[in-house]
Amino acid sequence: MAATKPPRGPLPPGSTIGILGSGQLARMLIMSAARLGFKFHIYADAPGPACDLTPLKTIAPYDDTAALTAFAASVDAVTFEFENVPEATAKTLAQHVVVRPNARAFAIAQDRLAEKLFVQKLGIAVAPFVKVVKAADIAKGLATFKAPAILKTCRLGYDGKGQARVAPGDDVAAAWRAIGAVPAVLEKKLAFRQELSVIIARASGGAVQVYDIPQNSHAGGILRRSIVPAPLDAATISRAQDIAEAIAEALDYVGVLAVELFDLGTSVPLNERLLVNEIAPRVHNSGHWTIDACGCDQFENQIRAVADWPLGSAERHSDAEMINLIGEDARAWRDLAADPDCIVHLYGKRDIREGRKMGHATRLFPKGTRG
Amino acid sequence: MAATKPPRGPLPPGSTIGILGSGQLARMLIMSAARLGFKFHIYADAPGPACDLTPLKTIAPYDDTAALTAFAASVDAVTFEFENVPEATAKTLAQHVVVRPNARAFAIAQDRLAEKLFVQKLGIAVAPFVKVVKAADIAKGLATFKAPAILKTCRLGYDGKGQARVAPGDDVAAAWRAIGAVPAVLEKKLAFRQELSVIIARASGGAVQVYDIPQNSHAGGILRRSIVPAPLDAATISRAQDIAEAIAEALDYVGVLAVELFDLGTSVPLNERLLVNEIAPRVHNSGHWTIDACGCDQFENQIRAVADWPLGSAERHSDAEMINLIGEDARAWRDLAADPDCIVHLYGKRDIREGRKMGHATRLFPKGTRG
Repeated sequence: MAATKPPRGPLPPGSTIGILGSGQLARMLIMSAARLGFKFHIYADAPGPACDLTPLKTIAPYDDTAALTAFAASVDAVTFEFENVPEATAKTLAQHVVVRPNARAFAIAQDRLAEKLFVQKLGIAVAPFVKVVKAADIAKGLATFKAPAILKTCRLGYDGKGQARVAPGDDVAAAWRAIGAVPAVLEKKLAFRQELSVIIARASGGAVQVYDIPQNSHAGGILRRSIVPAPLDAATISRAQDIAEAIAEALDYVGVLAVELFDLGTSVPLNERLLVNEIAPRVHNSGHWTIDACGCDQFENQIRAVADWPLGSAERHSDAEMINLIGEDARAWRDLAADPDCIVHLYGKRDIREGRKMGHATRLFPKGTRG
Repeated sequence: MAATKPPRGPLPPGSTIGILGSGQLARMLIMSAARLGFKFHIYADAPGPACDLTPLKTIAPYDDTAALTAFAASVDAVTFEFENVPEATAKTLAQHVVVRPNARAFAIAQDRLAEKLFVQKLGIAVAPFVKVVKAADIAKGLATFKAPAILKTCRLGYDGKGQARVAPGDDVAAAWRAIGAVPAVLEKKLAFRQELSVIIARASGGAVQVYDIPQNSHAGGILRRSIVPAPLDAATISRAQDIAEAIAEALDYVGVLAVELFDLGTSVPLNERLLVNEIAPRVHNSGHWTIDACGCDQFENQIRAVADWPLGSAERHSDAEMINLIGEDARAWRDLAADPDCIVHLYGKRDIREGRKMGHATRLFPKGTRG
């Protein structure tokens, strides 16, 4: 994705950053990076909470070439709050303006199979898997694993969507139908010790800042809680950071990237202990604690990278616990507001829906007391 | 200023907060309090950097009753980024919507003489002063003080504007002309040890949160640097907090209030050691470090108070130093951006002008290492 209008040095304050997507990640990108003196222009196919924080918005389909071209002409750089950017959208924009991250990162992160093959090629472990293009592939995979497995669509799955559990002896045709009979991977279910994520920011010159690694808990496929720092020894932390750095570098990535990891625990040799579960080419829910616990959070660093600024320090001044407010959880906002030590983040979404991310709450603890 | 539409309990997320003023304080109010899920509507007589962070704005004179009425009808509560709100403006708004802080706080803070008399009445010390309505009053004051003094207009002075230095033997008529021959106070110039400020948030029910006290340095009448915590013993801290609390309570204040103090030092008895210099009925430049060093900063607490939310904790997780970027200082933004440990705040103002507040930069230090 070659840029036709490359910025010379950092974009000056007063420049306009274009963001595709109007959800809470775009909203938090604006809230954090407004401190750099930028303006923001939202492009989305529907209004969302980010639209409340800027007068500049374009609501149009992601394949509206005229609208995309006008948008590109009105901004100084473009980034995204989500990874399922249609390839044609990114290419159209890149003809007119600097677009970050690049199209290759999206192409790989959008396809589970491509992602796993890419990670393996870097010498980094992933969970045992087989490619699935028909029901019989599921049966074959289960026979190989001799264990329960998870069927995941290659494309458009997130927050537990597009997934089905399946075990030896189950009706594989039913599992295949459950995910819509689309290309998928079958992943062996692992008894991991903990889930981790590495949030890494990479600048156009290759410099990186890596945030401390949170331990993440999910329920129903949705992140519920991140605690930082995760209980890890120095060698494992270093290995996790190396994995994230290798991925970011191999993608020539510019921006913030999240690498979700399964940690199999201390009984497994270090180079096989951490498995890459997923790559998210964007700011990530498991990095929301950085808003409150770091001088420069993941959102500001994303925009710094996009705007060719040097990165801010990912150093953490506090330990932190972040709880997601999902669906009905958000009704407790009065109780959360009444707790002076709870840092409440509400995304300004009007309607509560099951599984919808409505906000999150962070608690800080003196550094070193929580890990 | 009676409210005709009092909120019952905290305003729910999704409510719209009206802010008079479009400058950096309004911008930072939006940036911080957007995390509570609110929308914001700016009303100002000219566009400013806050307008870049909301689609809702009214640009109209402060005496445009029709515009004020329409604005009031479109928001759920109103607050201000500046203290020189015309009384009629606040009264017009208050006929339609909850307005905070109240008119009395503005009336007192807008008039240096009224402010000093109000503070004295609470048993709190101020610098020796005389009322000035003619040049001869200046001569009389200087004869009393037998020392250099500062002539300050009663109204519309800020950041060193509306002030003139005058000493025994000087041409008092010239000094009187220098400030525009308007009602003023003549204040004895004191050899204080340090300048301090207390930033206090007070909720509608009377609960308060007091931020730790910064030591402030000024140049040319403009704040240049705040360091927190100021070097103070526990008794003096307690006295300073009591002063701020007494003032906020006497005003039945709702919102964030800043009390600027002169500290005469340890050689003076405690109850005479701290003199009130000025009251600012709003978020304050000397509280900008709270954005980076506290879980709930002065801006969020201002909006929490205005929206009838319980206050967030004013606790500080780090020591901090804040430097203002005034006028040409802002040209150094590239250097500031290149320092990973410098938290840069740029206000998005297009034109650099002498004495104009363009941004600020904060550095954090582990708690207890800086005081």
